[in-house]
This record gives sequence, structure tokens and C-alpha cells, in this order.
Amino acid sequence: MLSKSQISLLTSLQHKKFRIVHSLFMVEGYKSIKEFINSAYQVHTIYHTPDVAAKLLKLSQKINFQEISLNELQKISSLKNPADAVAAIKIPQWPLLNYISLKNKFTLVLDGVQDPGNMGTIIRTADWFGITDIICSTDTVDAYNPKVVQATMGSLARVNITYTDLKEFISPLKMPVFGALLEGENIYKTDFGNEGFILMGNEGNGIRPDMEAIITKAVTIPRIGGAESLNVAIATAICCSHALAKSYK
Amino acid sequence: MLSKSQISLLTSLQHKKFRIVHSLFMVEGYKSIKEFINSAYQVHTIYHTPDVAAKLLKLSQKINFQEISLNELQKISSLKNPADAVAAIKIPQWPLLNYISLKNKFTLVLDGVQDPGNMGTIIRTADWFGITDIICSTDTVDAYNPKVVQATMGSLARVNITYTDLKEFISPLKMPVFGALLEGENIYKTDFGNEGFILMGNEGNGIRPDMEAIITKAVTIPRIGGAESLNVAIATAICCSHALAKSYK
Repeated sequence: MLSKSQISLLTSLQHKKFRIVHSLFMVEGYKSIKEFINSAYQVHTIYHTPDVAAKLLKLSQKINFQEISLNELQKISSLKNPADAVAAIKIPQWPLLNYISLKNKFTLVLDGVQDPGNMGTIIRTADWFGITDIICSTDTVDAYNPKVVQATMGSLARVNITYTDLKEFISPLKMPVFGALLEGENIYKTDFGNEGFILMGNEGNGIRPDMEAIITKAVTIPRIGGAESLNVAIATAICCSHALAKSYK
Repeated sequence: MLSKSQISLLTSLQHKKFRIVHSLFMVEGYKSIKEFINSAYQVHTIYHTPDVAAKLLKLSQKINFQEISLNELQKISSLKNPADAVAAIKIPQWPLLNYISLKNKFTLVLDGVQDPGNMGTIIRTADWFGITDIICSTDTVDAYNPKVVQATMGSLARVNITYTDLKEFISPLKMPVFGALLEGENIYKTDFGNEGFILMGNEGNGIRPDMEAIITKAVTIPRIGGAESLNVAIATAICCSHALAKSYK
């Protein structure tokens, strides 16, 4: 049985300021929670309905478990139809990124992405392509927002998200910065080499002018039809796909 | 001022059965409505707040306009924060597709895509790549669902959506069918030629076995990282991008 203060703490994690206060975020559903158990994250407590108890207990003995009713699950969940379990997980302090940790690979950089669904899909896509780091401007949507976590489908457990001053961080590294702009080199002709940043902008406004200044190669997905723009998660996926395509050949 | 029966008719269009009864669907926001005015669609009535009147009237004299208050707009809108206008638009009867209309181009085929956001993003992406037709299984989410329409960002005005028995329609055409499966040819090595169907499956279950049978070339986006799958709109975009890449060279 959940106490009133537990319910209050858990529901408060839907808001960024309380996630920061408690240094916790929530992951919903057995399938996603499993990915965090097998990761560098520290799972604090798993609140689960009776039906998943056996499955969950097999995963690890080192985690706090609390059996709750479906009614209680509905109280603490951010979903309309919560599945079976909710986990409170520690927000990690990732080691600081540097040139050594970024060379010989591609790293995504997000300049002000706002939509939680887009952010989650970008994290999931990065994970598919083996991209281990995403560097975000401080005004990019919080990766521990419940809607973001949900859309990553567990991939958040494998992709490190860093929020920082992008220009200050990237400029001194002297690595290639591929920026997705409407006026750039045809992406299908671009040689991405074997390392660099893939920079994507905000849904409505694209990449900010002061960030455009650090782009070393502007790239464009050429348009054939009539759409004014591509969704940012779609554009990110196409850029990653072309940057990494030759790794498969 | 809107009558009660107008409000009732317009809000009923959020449900598929009433869209079929009235042969109407709704488009929200001046920017998207504009795309339908300049298209093959027949715009029935535009309900707009006073501030957009002048802009809208410039677009066409042949459409019914009705000025409404913001309060009335909120009553008929499917959005939490409606912008400025809602249009009721005729659901068209597209001419039947045949080999002549599909040869020398790529056509998307969706086998049971369910999520309105994914469907809308797929339509927007198809429009970017100049794909003019999407053929859907009859259980694919309705393209005139308000959430789909919203996510297309106006692209629905340029992409024809046909619902039919996929196997019955596609098999006799004897054209290439590229199916996105987890076990297929590396998509980065696939020669797509210059025509064919790009077949994508349902979010959770992929392509149905009886549809797998009509695939002439199974293709796969190779995975480097840990994600179990890609979002279907992301996978669709990557397939379209690679199928069409050589058109740009």
C-alpha cells in the first residue's frame, strides 16, 4: 500500500523541478524498466502490480520492490492506461564528455528541440544507430520528462544525454560539425568521414544563428515534393542514416 | 454565431463514422487550411476568428466563410489551444489507381499502421520525397482523423490515400515490392531501381505473414546499437530516402 507522501513524491516527478529536487525520474512498464536494470542507471524502487511480481523478481535482488494495486498504479502513472509497473530511477551524473570520448564517432547535437515525442524518437533512433551521446542546448526538452522516456522505448538506458552551452563546448574541439539546414550541400553527396557532430535545430525555428556559425558543413535533405519541412526526428534519422551508411558496406 | 446543430455536426467529425456519414473532415489552422484551398480538395466552409478574416478572404471567393468567436472555436476544435480557424472539407473520391498511374515511381504501402502521429508524419515525409500515393490496408488508421491531419502539416492536401485490400490490389500489378523486415538485404546495398512499392508494417507486429508473401525484395536497416526496433515513421523515412537517393545524383 502506498502512503500519501509516496504518491505525492511519485506524481511530482512529472515536473522537472521536482525531478531535480529528488534526483529521480520515472520509467513506466515492465519492458522499459528491464532496460534500465541492465544499464548504468541505478533503479531506486519498482512499484508493480501483483501479476508482474515473479517476472520482476527474477531480474535482480538488489532493487527495492513494492507491490501495489492497479488502482494505486493509476494514481502514480502519467499514462491513461498504465501497464504493470512504474520505477523510480536515479538521474545520473554522466562523466564529462571530452575529445577522447567523442573522436572516431558521430554525436548528435540538439539546438532547442521542444516536443517530447520528437526527443524520445530521436533518442530511440540514436540508439538504433549506435550513437552513444546526445548533447543538448540547455533549453532542449528534458530527457527525463515522462513523455520523452515513454517514446524512447527503453533506449534512454543506453544513450547519454548532456545539457550544456553548445557553442562553448563544441567550438574548442575542432571536430566537423554537420548542420542540417534548408540551404546546404546535398546530403546524398556529402562525405561524412568517420567522426563529427550532427547538429539539428528546433521544430519551428531550426538552428539558431549563433550555432550556424560553428557549422563546418551545412547539409540538406533535398526536397522533391511540396512539404515545407520535415519533422525534426525524421530529418535526424535521415542524417544519421547517411552519415553511418558506409559503416555497413 | 454557430447554431447548436452546427456545433454538433462539427464535433462529430472527430469520429470516423460521422466523417463517413457527412463525407467531411476537419482541418485546423490557417496555415494548413491554405494548403487545401490550393489543392484538388473541395473546401466546404471555413470557420474563423475575426483576426484571420482578411487573410482568408484573400485566398478565394468561392468558399463559405463564417466568422466565429474564440469561444466558439474552442467548442468545435479538437485541439487544446486552437489557433485561428477550422475548415470542413469534403472527403474526396480519388480516381482508382492502376499500373499506369503507379509505374516509374515509388508508392508507399502501409499494412496496419495504427498511431495517428506516425500516420501523419509518414504522409508529411512522403510529400517531402514527392511520393503522391499511399495505399493502406483497410485497418490502417483513418487519414482524416484530426490527429493525423494535424501531424501532416498540410501535406495531406498533396498525397492521395487509398484504403483497399492490399494483396488483391498489389499482386496483379507485377511490380517490385520492397518490404521492410528485420531480416532482409542491407538497405544500403539495395538497388531500388526506379519504381515499386515500399511496404511498411504495423507498429508492434510489423508486416502480416500473408503480405510478406508478396514481397519481392526484403530490406533491412542494419542496427548498430541496442534499440529493439525503429519507430515506423522513422523506418519509412529511411527507406524512402534510400530508394530515392539516386534521383538526386
